[in-house]
Amino acid sequence: MKVKNRLLNFGDMIIYQDDECLRFSLDSVLLANFVTIKLTDKKIIDLCSGNAPIPMLLSLRTDARIFGVELQENIFKLGYDSIKENKLDNQIELINLDVLEIPKKIESEKFDIVTCNPPYFKYTKNSLVNANDSLTIARHEVCIKLEDIFKIAKYLLKNGGTFAFVHRPERIGEIIILLQKYGFELKKMQLVYPKINKEANMVLIEAVKNGKSGLKVLKPLIIYDEEGKYYKNIKKLFGDDDDVAK
Amino acid sequence: MKVKNRLLNFGDMIIYQDDECLRFSLDSVLLANFVTIKLTDKKIIDLCSGNAPIPMLLSLRTDARIFGVELQENIFKLGYDSIKENKLDNQIELINLDVLEIPKKIESEKFDIVTCNPPYFKYTKNSLVNANDSLTIARHEVCIKLEDIFKIAKYLLKNGGTFAFVHRPERIGEIIILLQKYGFELKKMQLVYPKINKEANMVLIEAVKNGKSGLKVLKPLIIYDEEGKYYKNIKKLFGDDDDVAK
Repeated sequence: MKVKNRLLNFGDMIIYQDDECLRFSLDSVLLANFVTIKLTDKKIIDLCSGNAPIPMLLSLRTDARIFGVELQENIFKLGYDSIKENKLDNQIELINLDVLEIPKKIESEKFDIVTCNPPYFKYTKNSLVNANDSLTIARHEVCIKLEDIFKIAKYLLKNGGTFAFVHRPERIGEIIILLQKYGFELKKMQLVYPKINKEANMVLIEAVKNGKSGLKVLKPLIIYDEEGKYYKNIKKLFGDDDDVAK
Repeated sequence: MKVKNRLLNFGDMIIYQDDECLRFSLDSVLLANFVTIKLTDKKIIDLCSGNAPIPMLLSLRTDARIFGVELQENIFKLGYDSIKENKLDNQIELINLDVLEIPKKIESEKFDIVTCNPPYFKYTKNSLVNANDSLTIARHEVCIKLEDIFKIAKYLLKNGGTFAFVHRPERIGEIIILLQKYGFELKKMQLVYPKINKEANMVLIEAVKNGKSGLKVLKPLIIYDEEGKYYKNIKKLFGDDDDVAK
């Protein structure tokens, strides 16, 4: 069922969601806040956009032209409607396309920034999920694998362009080896911990195409305080502990 | 000048230090606490041991036989005297040897665990340091490079053995690529932040020789609270905010 939610707990931006599709989550809010945007950046593209939370959130930070690419038509339509309703269609263009088809449809090396909140989980024939299910496609590497995303990001980015994404910490090793394989230099990393005494459950990563070395590991992002309420820096990002983006 | 300090702020273990050499620091305390020690582990070796804080701290956790290798004779002697004074010479053997010479002197694949708190900083001819200085050798890659340590750790460890070390976060990318090159699987990582709102300034890493994949990023280690006092989990490790290991 299509529902209309606020994108953040402040401001008046809305986002259409659907019970049967993956709803946008904290990951996207964190990534849209994490990525470095320079004043000179003119073109941004978000891969695996879903219902387009990242393009919409980025529009709060930049006047650059923003593109979003989403494979699943039902989710694409939710994003499309949200962008129209928020009157962002002058700045954001959502494209209903398989990310793997990008080299056939979009010119190479024209973008300053690529962002992506990809499916996190490896998919094998033994995975206990339905490969045709919309949620499965958004969460599992059924239609696209991590390495494909790196390949496409390299194709899209100008030299010196920025690639920022969010993933699960257990794949950091694989991520760093793929970054090197595709000519990216790791520049910024931030670990996300659900609580101060818990293992990290997310990592934000920024790399630069053919960049110089020099990694910074930013301050820890801790989501909940000891009472289970959003930590103050998380509240600042998207408002109080309403259930919108939980 | 040789001075006698307590190794921890509790217990009665001592450590000899010298103003002109690198004094042991929090890094070693954290690493000795971080490394996984199994009941079946029988032989441990610590590389770049300095005045032997890690071998001595490990002796509090295990009955395994512990070796330490240190190149610089003056620092080796401090460690040797500390081990004698603590009556640990039955369990710990300190060897005054260049780590690069290990394959000529020590048999391969006999160790369950290798630990190392290596020199952190790259050394070039333009580095503004004195290459003969004892502090420089302990801090800069004058006598040994990161890759050498990985090579030696691989040589020393049994199949399935554990390699644990501490380093600077800016070198995480390089570390992960070298781990792969030498057949290690990254298993455990912990970021150390001086304060909750500061960038990480240390990383603890554990890898297994020919291990299975599955990385965990442990809870953040935050050193000081907002008032500049040791955080409670750090206090637990080595006592109150005395200046011994600052």
